[in-house]
Amino acid sequence: MFSKHKFLSVCNELLRKSTSINTKFLRNVQTNRCKTGTGNTSFTPRTHTCGELRLTDVGKQVHLCGWLQYQRMGGLFLILRDWEGMTQVVIPSSKVHKLDEISTTAYESVIEVTGTVSSRPTGQENQTMPTGSIEVTVDDLTILNTCQALPFELRDFHEVKESLRMEHRYLDLRTQRMQNNLRLRSKMVMKMREFLCNLHGFVDVETPTLFRRTPGGAKEFVVPSRHPGKFYSLPQSPQQFKQLLMVGGLDRYFQIARCYRDEGSKPDRQPEFTQVDIEMSFVDREGVIQLVEELVQFSWPEEKGEITTPFPRMTYKDAMRQYGVDKPDTRFDMRLKDVSDVLRGSNFKPFTDHLDDNSGSVQALRIPNGSRHMSNKDVDSLKQNASSLRDLNIVIMRFTEERQWKSGIIKHLSEKELEALELELGVCPNDLIFLVAGKSYDPHETLGKLRLDCAELLESKGKDIRDKENFNFLWVVDFPLFLPKEEGEGLESAHHPFTACHPQDRQLLYSDAEKVRSQHYDLVLNGNEIGGGSIRIHDAKLQRFVLEKILQENPSELEHLLTALDMGCPPHGGIALGLDRYVSLLCDAKSIRDVIAFPKSHDGKDPMSKAPATVSNEDLAQYHIKVNSPVT
Amino acid sequence: MFSKHKFLSVCNELLRKSTSINTKFLRNVQTNRCKTGTGNTSFTPRTHTCGELRLTDVGKQVHLCGWLQYQRMGGLFLILRDWEGMTQVVIPSSKVHKLDEISTTAYESVIEVTGTVSSRPTGQENQTMPTGSIEVTVDDLTILNTCQALPFELRDFHEVKESLRMEHRYLDLRTQRMQNNLRLRSKMVMKMREFLCNLHGFVDVETPTLFRRTPGGAKEFVVPSRHPGKFYSLPQSPQQFKQLLMVGGLDRYFQIARCYRDEGSKPDRQPEFTQVDIEMSFVDREGVIQLVEELVQFSWPEEKGEITTPFPRMTYKDAMRQYGVDKPDTRFDMRLKDVSDVLRGSNFKPFTDHLDDNSGSVQALRIPNGSRHMSNKDVDSLKQNASSLRDLNIVIMRFTEERQWKSGIIKHLSEKELEALELELGVCPNDLIFLVAGKSYDPHETLGKLRLDCAELLESKGKDIRDKENFNFLWVVDFPLFLPKEEGEGLESAHHPFTACHPQDRQLLYSDAEKVRSQHYDLVLNGNEIGGGSIRIHDAKLQRFVLEKILQENPSELEHLLTALDMGCPPHGGIALGLDRYVSLLCDAKSIRDVIAFPKSHDGKDPMSKAPATVSNEDLAQYHIKVNSPVT
Repeated sequence: MFSKHKFLSVCNELLRKSTSINTKFLRNVQTNRCKTGTGNTSFTPRTHTCGELRLTDVGKQVHLCGWLQYQRMGGLFLILRDWEGMTQVVIPSSKVHKLDEISTTAYESVIEVTGTVSSRPTGQENQTMPTGSIEVTVDDLTILNTCQALPFELRDFHEVKESLRMEHRYLDLRTQRMQNNLRLRSKMVMKMREFLCNLHGFVDVETPTLFRRTPGGAKEFVVPSRHPGKFYSLPQSPQQFKQLLMVGGLDRYFQIARCYRDEGSKPDRQPEFTQVDIEMSFVDREGVIQLVEELVQFSWPEEKGEITTPFPRMTYKDAMRQYGVDKPDTRFDMRLKDVSDVLRGSNFKPFTDHLDDNSGSVQALRIPNGSRHMSNKDVDSLKQNASSLRDLNIVIMRFTEERQWKSGIIKHLSEKELEALELELGVCPNDLIFLVAGKSYDPHETLGKLRLDCAELLESKGKDIRDKENFNFLWVVDFPLFLPKEEGEGLESAHHPFTACHPQDRQLLYSDAEKVRSQHYDLVLNGNEIGGGSIRIHDAKLQRFVLEKILQENPSELEHLLTALDMGCPPHGGIALGLDRYVSLLCDAKSIRDVIAFPKSHDGKDPMSKAPATVSNEDLAQYHIKVNSPVT
Repeated sequence: MFSKHKFLSVCNELLRKSTSINTKFLRNVQTNRCKTGTGNTSFTPRTHTCGELRLTDVGKQVHLCGWLQYQRMGGLFLILRDWEGMTQVVIPSSKVHKLDEISTTAYESVIEVTGTVSSRPTGQENQTMPTGSIEVTVDDLTILNTCQALPFELRDFHEVKESLRMEHRYLDLRTQRMQNNLRLRSKMVMKMREFLCNLHGFVDVETPTLFRRTPGGAKEFVVPSRHPGKFYSLPQSPQQFKQLLMVGGLDRYFQIARCYRDEGSKPDRQPEFTQVDIEMSFVDREGVIQLVEELVQFSWPEEKGEITTPFPRMTYKDAMRQYGVDKPDTRFDMRLKDVSDVLRGSNFKPFTDHLDDNSGSVQALRIPNGSRHMSNKDVDSLKQNASSLRDLNIVIMRFTEERQWKSGIIKHLSEKELEALELELGVCPNDLIFLVAGKSYDPHETLGKLRLDCAELLESKGKDIRDKENFNFLWVVDFPLFLPKEEGEGLESAHHPFTACHPQDRQLLYSDAEKVRSQHYDLVLNGNEIGGGSIRIHDAKLQRFVLEKILQENPSELEHLLTALDMGCPPHGGIALGLDRYVSLLCDAKSIRDVIAFPKSHDGKDPMSKAPATVSNEDLAQYHIKVNSPVT
């Protein structure tokens, strides 16, 4: 066979040898070369992938490459596999001398085949296989690489421990699941880029990952430099850079940005992750929200059905009050209900004590039919889980088939109070009620956790609670700009110190900062925060006031940003979408590890390469550091 | 004005307030929202950029945002600027009360204007300005942010020290030069992605940057982890990962990959840089070369003229012999010439000593008209520069207008030898000749440096040597697979240990490894290496042989890769293009810093944020490290 590929290679050889290049000839070759065309097999001798041959291809000479999936009848029939599918290959009688070698070749060996497509004999078609109507009769077959003993069978991957799969990640990548996930991710990001770059004039700018430590950047990895005692820091996001780009007149920026966060071993977090980072000048909240909605719609994978924009919105306050969380899963109802007024007159002291407090309340969560599906043991375990959050007392009430209340607190409640509760909550027979009292959003958060845990428990018992095919996007807006510090007195930023305040609350900044709402917005999908952003402060004086007076921080580490704001910084805002999480929700993957080619394990280790690893003292000395002894 | 933007914002507000969402209304709004359309001002109140209004827009109501470039006549006329251009803005008599404020506003302040486009009065058009036929008469003008004192005038940026510009990088970014460079870069990368992803089925896969140290990875930054004494390493390229992806059946991979290299302070290098990283399975050298040629052509910026493929090729041997370097600048001739045979019989001992040596030779470089344009002082300085490379003796010969040789070595050469030299080199009156003797490629390298330095010197004197508009691509192929170690005995990889050998030289591996050619290829543009790649070893046994027997390395740190090769690794190869360098050549930028938004200085520092910086001992203790004292 003298393929086009080989022809071109000969042409090139000739070209290379000729000392004076004939440009006319050159142009001819170029035209030929362009004919190579596009597709999944261009620039290689392959003519097709293993998933694409059909009856219409019968008679064609083809060249396939792939992995040996299966063989039968002593190697007479082979199944060749690549990411796109499988094709049956037949050894004709003229090649039976090859059978010895083929029949002893291990599965997952790499094989190259040239041959002719023929239709399968009647009755031997395989309806479950897209290529099941044809087979390829071999002209030539080469075993390109022999597979040695596998640590596990690829088809059993779901039964294999994740640590073993991660140690041999390259095998896990061969599974249809990982191929689909990574290919979907690539395609989706490409669509996002087309939307931003080609349709809306955004500029893809790469920002540094070797930066200086940001104030309070306790979760930033450090990178020792050759300057004694000086360290770079791997930033958690390009936040400062994107704002500086706005100052620099790059008025529409985006980047698929690698970010770093050292969180020790939090479940389903990765030390490095990716965000779709966007910033625009001269934009308000509506502009960013609309941009993101159109971006999501434009890049939405066709096979996942349709989504509707605009996405619904909810204030932070409503989210906390109704769902007990700032990222509500709105695929199911079971909203919280404030029953403070109903129970204010009761003599149940754990409730009334809280109701005397200004910010105290009693909140209720009703689980329809919960009494039927959840045993006492289930409920105890749920309570235990939920009380780990805020350590609040969780009261259970069951409503029987016969419309009778059963609960330890009944004796503290009047008939009238019980009736009011029944009415207020719309209680039905077999419902189960959780009641929690506490201050501010504490009871809500406890019930918010219970709400999600109950949904999961009921689903594990076969109940339909959330539609897995549903994608409920939701904007949460009007967050508080500041929150009381987790430790000590004073306020800290709810998100980051560059967030602008709500235009209506500007005056409150100087009088009652805790009440100020921000121009921050979160994008939530099925109860997961997949993005967050804000309109930023573009006024240097205001930024300095927030840093110095409200957050009581020394602004010296941010002096470069403050100076920049003073040199003609336009109003600007943006957002960052968590790509790993977003794609994992789209792929219905259990973990973000399933949409990352080479993830780290829970504790930040790579079981494949054994990173992190020791480094010699000489190498460390270049960076003027040493390891604290003793090292365990 | 009640713009569409505001209308939508009101709609959303209404939506947010309505508890039961009317889906029909929702759909209507969605349709309206989609009308926002595309372009450089979508999702903002801006209707146009400052560069796009023309006579055909006269009468339109417009909304512009930009920086105050200039004002005259007490603020009656303003020039507003953004990245796309400038527009003249006129304050009408009805707004003269605004003039006090406007006339005192500093240049580079940020201004928002709504107004009406009108044609300029006859005679007041500005032909040098693309928008010079129109002006915008103000309805409303807002100063969005006032600029404080600038550290330098933007229009004088070329006279400003680079360190000051880097300290205020955001100002430098506002210059047309930086805007053009970064926008060209973004567009070019986007075209590359379209080519790879959309036309040829490549998958964009992100690989980790927190990895383990590779053998001999002396230039890798280390990142301390929370595991005592264990470090990640920032890889110099995704080489191992791309090969593992091939094992994993992701048969066409690409990534615009961030890479890291700690080289101390080398000129025009950056500690982090970007490469276009590509790998394919079932491909040979021709396939990769053709892919890259089509990629370059597809992504080539229109305004840079046409380029022709295929690119010429040259073997490593020819490049070294003719140009004295493995990345020849073929935009000009001045090739080296071997004059060993001509001078073999001379009695000039510095030459004949070398000619007695097996690998010795005398090489000549002829500079046409060099004697006319280069003074003795010039030549001395060139000699000094070039001899720093290999410390070889450089002999000068001048050929006068009267066709007489002038040189210190004439007395050692016979009349016949001088005639032969004249003939061999095609010497013309006023030519200048450099002669260098030495072993193997030492004299070539010395003259290769002289060749480039002479070109630069002659250009600085106004001679046309290299066409700045020319883009000479060149493939250099058939590199040696191994080179003698720079220090000590034995061989080291010319590129990296995963490079496959030339198919014709396979047997030499076991007998005379130094003679083995590799399947490595470099892409050279105007004398700069802008890419390199190879077909890789896919056979575990062969890879182990190369590591253990030839390179004498302990393969334990690469055990995961060796295991992977044994589990069905397809033949594969690829390339990495140095994006920063490539774009800087396209932009005719002096340094790669001019195509990077936030580069580091020569010594790896960021003059803007002052990175790297000190880190507290408590923070370092988390990572079980401390700084070696004393720190200066």
